[in-house]
Amino acid sequence: MDDQKTKPEADFRSDNTGRVAPELLEALVRANSGTAFGYGADEWTARLQRRFSELFETAVAVYPVATGTAANALSLAALSPSFGAVYCAPEAHVITAEANAAGFFSGGAKLTPVAGAHGKLQCEALAATLEVAGAGQAHRSQPAVVTLTQATELGAVYTLDEVRAIAAVAKAHGLKMHMDGARFANALVRLGCSPAELTWRSGVDVLSFGVTKNGGLLGDAIVVFNPAAVTALPNQLRRAGLVWSKMRFAAAQLLAYVEDELWLRMAAAANALAQRLAAGLSRIPGVELLAPVEANELFLRLPGPVIDGLERDGIRFYRRPGNIVRLVCRFDATAAEADAVIASLRRQLGG
Amino acid sequence: MDDQKTKPEADFRSDNTGRVAPELLEALVRANSGTAFGYGADEWTARLQRRFSELFETAVAVYPVATGTAANALSLAALSPSFGAVYCAPEAHVITAEANAAGFFSGGAKLTPVAGAHGKLQCEALAATLEVAGAGQAHRSQPAVVTLTQATELGAVYTLDEVRAIAAVAKAHGLKMHMDGARFANALVRLGCSPAELTWRSGVDVLSFGVTKNGGLLGDAIVVFNPAAVTALPNQLRRAGLVWSKMRFAAAQLLAYVEDELWLRMAAAANALAQRLAAGLSRIPGVELLAPVEANELFLRLPGPVIDGLERDGIRFYRRPGNIVRLVCRFDATAAEADAVIASLRRQLGG
Amino acid sequence: MDDQKTKPEADFRSDNTGRVAPELLEALVRANSGTAFGYGADEWTARLQRRFSELFETAVAVYPVATGTAANALSLAALSPSFGAVYCAPEAHVITAEANAAGFFSGGAKLTPVAGAHGKLQCEALAATLEVAGAGQAHRSQPAVVTLTQATELGAVYTLDEVRAIAAVAKAHGLKMHMDGARFANALVRLGCSPAELTWRSGVDVLSFGVTKNGGLLGDAIVVFNPAAVTALPNQLRRAGLVWSKMRFAAAQLLAYVEDELWLRMAAAANALAQRLAAGLSRIPGVELLAPVEANELFLRLPGPVIDGLERDGIRFYRRPGNIVRLVCRFDATAAEADAVIASLRRQLGG
Amino acid sequence: MDDQKTKPEADFRSDNTGRVAPELLEALVRANSGTAFGYGADEWTARLQRRFSELFETAVAVYPVATGTAANALSLAALSPSFGAVYCAPEAHVITAEANAAGFFSGGAKLTPVAGAHGKLQCEALAATLEVAGAGQAHRSQPAVVTLTQATELGAVYTLDEVRAIAAVAKAHGLKMHMDGARFANALVRLGCSPAELTWRSGVDVLSFGVTKNGGLLGDAIVVFNPAAVTALPNQLRRAGLVWSKMRFAAAQLLAYVEDELWLRMAAAANALAQRLAAGLSRIPGVELLAPVEANELFLRLPGPVIDGLERDGIRFYRRPGNIVRLVCRFDATAAEADAVIASLRRQLGG
Repeated sequence: MDDQKTKPEADFRSDNTGRVAPELLEALVRANSGTAFGYGADEWTARLQRRFSELFETAVAVYPVATGTAANALSLAALSPSFGAVYCAPEAHVITAEANAAGFFSGGAKLTPVAGAHGKLQCEALAATLEVAGAGQAHRSQPAVVTLTQATELGAVYTLDEVRAIAAVAKAHGLKMHMDGARFANALVRLGCSPAELTWRSGVDVLSFGVTKNGGLLGDAIVVFNPAAVTALPNQLRRAGLVWSKMRFAAAQLLAYVEDELWLRMAAAANALAQRLAAGLSRIPGVELLAPVEANELFLRLPGPVIDGLERDGIRFYRRPGNIVRLVCRFDATAAEADAVIASLRRQLGG
Repeated sequence: MDDQKTKPEADFRSDNTGRVAPELLEALVRANSGTAFGYGADEWTARLQRRFSELFETAVAVYPVATGTAANALSLAALSPSFGAVYCAPEAHVITAEANAAGFFSGGAKLTPVAGAHGKLQCEALAATLEVAGAGQAHRSQPAVVTLTQATELGAVYTLDEVRAIAAVAKAHGLKMHMDGARFANALVRLGCSPAELTWRSGVDVLSFGVTKNGGLLGDAIVVFNPAAVTALPNQLRRAGLVWSKMRFAAAQLLAYVEDELWLRMAAAANALAQRLAAGLSRIPGVELLAPVEANELFLRLPGPVIDGLERDGIRFYRRPGNIVRLVCRFDATAAEADAVIASLRRQLGG
Repeated sequence: MDDQKTKPEADFRSDNTGRVAPELLEALVRANSGTAFGYGADEWTARLQRRFSELFETAVAVYPVATGTAANALSLAALSPSFGAVYCAPEAHVITAEANAAGFFSGGAKLTPVAGAHGKLQCEALAATLEVAGAGQAHRSQPAVVTLTQATELGAVYTLDEVRAIAAVAKAHGLKMHMDGARFANALVRLGCSPAELTWRSGVDVLSFGVTKNGGLLGDAIVVFNPAAVTALPNQLRRAGLVWSKMRFAAAQLLAYVEDELWLRMAAAANALAQRLAAGLSRIPGVELLAPVEANELFLRLPGPVIDGLERDGIRFYRRPGNIVRLVCRFDATAAEADAVIASLRRQLGG
Repeated sequence: MDDQKTKPEADFRSDNTGRVAPELLEALVRANSGTAFGYGADEWTARLQRRFSELFETAVAVYPVATGTAANALSLAALSPSFGAVYCAPEAHVITAEANAAGFFSGGAKLTPVAGAHGKLQCEALAATLEVAGAGQAHRSQPAVVTLTQATELGAVYTLDEVRAIAAVAKAHGLKMHMDGARFANALVRLGCSPAELTWRSGVDVLSFGVTKNGGLLGDAIVVFNPAAVTALPNQLRRAGLVWSKMRFAAAQLLAYVEDELWLRMAAAANALAQRLAAGLSRIPGVELLAPVEANELFLRLPGPVIDGLERDGIRFYRRPGNIVRLVCRFDATAAEADAVIASLRRQLGG
């Protein structure tokens, strides 16, 4: 295929360009025997509920779905009425890159950006916004949900204290808390805390549990901590064409994903590579890091010609307006790939 | 797991209880190397477009999606305005079993049953309905689409002449044609015609290309023959959370599915087993077949106690109101499974 | 204007071709003094709540809205989830003539026809339908609401016993009851019962309170008996652009409409004219009445040339497929208009 | 009623607290004779199309609707796909005060604020936003519409040059132009230009034609200059319950509204009163005007105790966070009302 070059690859375009963890494919093979009831009434899906309840140290409901966008949009639609307001950081994927999915599934809920640094929604800004949001006034979008992307779209990670403070503000105003965990494992690894601490113990009601970007195949999941907040979610999922009839194969992947801490090991690899890159870049003059490197993404500002040089050197990445370079470390990226970036920039900029 | 019993299984609950064709899993393993652009901008997905265009003998656009419900609902939503009417057989899955998905995605389009025999929509009944449907009157749902399930939910198969006659009526009134091909391969095998003949050459604009029920894993596809009929479908799919970022793995499965006629061989096996069952049952007094057995499903009416006996004999199937038994043959079901049903009924009813 | 002919008019096209009761226009003039708070926070609207609570002998919430379609669609959307099924008679305006409004506002709820005679939904047919509707199965549209049109679209009137029996079946299955009262006053007059008896005392949760067809101007209303069934209706109305800022003028009309039984007097006039017509027609051979004349509408089957003759005689009415003539009596129609129809038919058919 | 006090009223809460122009009520009485076809197929509605085409100097389609929110939301839904972005000023009513109506009717279209002064969307900011909006990328909301409120929610008026410059940017990017003309007449009077100049001649495709705030009763209108941009709007209006069956009475009001320049005279009165207020306030120390007074609204910042004093003096107005006072001049407000405000502030602040 086009992407298998003879020359060593250095691909930082996204964590969705990477491979699937072989363990997930092996799980599919193992599950591919005998027959099983459809639409989630099978033993694998039952086991998934138990396993994730163990993992999160509380009874959870897990709904495997096709994509992170589906997980986010259905979660937000279940948490917000059509006349609701959903608060997010200005850089949040749900508002910048999901083609109005949340608005569509909710029948109109309004994503409302609340500023902060490094892709975070800031707690005080949220409080100030809610103060004048007009809850109870029928003209106004009714404050309904706060959604945090963890890790953020700029590669930062909310601390537990930050999540808790935001949740406290949200709850004080009667809002629900959603976490877009597209890179949940990367955040967990960074923080060194438990899945429970980062979610329901910090006030999160529903989690979009990301798998795809971290070695997954074709699926993510919704994890519900607060079932009262998402009435009739199974019906909403079915109506959205998001319930697989051969659910055992989705459940089997999720079971394999968390088995023996596979997910955390993959995220740790990606995070470590980002640290290797950050360390290397910090020694090169003229490289400006736009956000702290806390997960598996780096954002650099570089002179245009230097960016051209990176491209000439065969480094693959996304170029954004304003001479910004985004580098995303895949779980299966190699040190050689990171070193290729450092070498190219050193050649161009010294250091 | 619960479904792997020591005693020989005879599972006719659904074709979604079955296994995945090993060839599809092998294709995943083969595709799992190197990196690839996300969201369908990869070489596998490009190859898929070419391969299916070849298969259908015309330029098509193929959109892999998570489920058949998603394929149907998005197709119908793209073909019908929110004030449109979509005509289907009363037994059609879109109206009986998809939790209002088509209405939801279209913003209200109305599924309108048109009677016929054996799960078919009847051509003359359609013509009569359209005659008085009030096209152009703003009060009325505007006739927009006809959708046919091929094979039907009762196990019958529309002949080419039937599809063409319905399409002719539809086109004469300015409607579009959709085919729910959840069991498309079973119908193809039955008719012995080409994919082109059964679709665009007979007037079909968009096809829900079923894979799951015939050895698939976690995906089906939308195949578009008439791109003018489905404006902005890629945006609608994205907005619906139905575009996988690791699309290469969905494309790879679809390529493997049609490679060396795998799909037709699997459907032929399922159909043949249904014929074996039908032949065996025809010799048993008191077994009433409710529809001709033309694909991989059988519907029987049996005395209640006989149905109880089937269950006691460990035969798995769905029991429907009115003493109706549905038997669905999986691609991987065995002759022994069919013979177990026949033996149980013979024991009970003689013959 | 075109409709003011010198020759005596005989206009039976619809009850919406008629005039506005002068009392309503006078109420507008009376309310047109001083200033008043917007969006329903005015004294007229407060008085409306009190007056209708008195009228219905229970605390109700009244929401004036622009049209009967808006009243129906918003009521049904508030009563049904998007994956819900709404049961109605096959002739119900909500399914035949409101351009998918209920499906649109509810995000997909499915209108499901249940047969009966004369535009009625039949109680036993409803029970049989609900028996196999699949409540609790996520694939199926979830049974949510029964809606009755009172008087029906064919001019019949549900008896109190019929309403109660249907409501009993609905409630036994956990469904809510809606009444489309586009011709509520005509039904009340026919039955001689109280508004309370015909609604909440018989199990109705929400009423579309029709005004337009019975001397109204540009507004109808939603009357809620069971507030728990329609959470957040005020927000939904606002989001639908259906809350007037100068609400006092809508409220003033509704107050005038029920003042001194104006509404019942108008409906009685329309019903009486329908009886005069029915009596006259019953003496003419070859006139077939398709439904009992219980409100202000008559449906006749006549030979095509006779219908042509009616038109030639300047009688205005709607002609429907199958040689059917619909005659609707306006509150302000005259005996001379009715007599013109009778005379024309007698000339043509004898009697 | 509560609002009719013996002491002189000074009510600046909103222009929707005011009266209806008596001419509109007289028009209702005149139209209330004979019968007329329903749903807009009457002579008044036909005359309305001709009259407004004359008024706007081009063939227009006019759709009377119940409210300005309905006019805005349906217009935007007709102009934008569900995956579209609609650009507006941060203060625009569509984003701050219409309870997600535009998102609801469009199935998710995203309102995107673009900054500017005094409630205006700024042309250069729009250009910069569109430059990076990602048109053509399926992840992104697709740029679809620019909507301007004229006059703005802060009482400023876009000049013709401003409208044209914004429209030029919009058209260059393939976007459509909508104008929320809730106070269209006030803007027209301010600019002294023709309705044509302020709309289609400056690039506006669809106008929400405000009536309610300027002496209207219970209705506004959508005026379409570019019919190709709003496919199937009549079906969408019907499906939204926004087509009155007794349309003649809505048309008659709109005809009266523009007859003999009534609308402009009313707007001129409101604007003049705002100027009287502005002139009076300009002589009082400590009164800070937040935006130029160009239509019928004033926004002041005042010390909290002074605002309390205004309230004690019986002046009615809306108090907003940050010690802001909004004063809106009704068409029927009197010089005495304005003078009461000036007197109160002078008493408190000197000057």
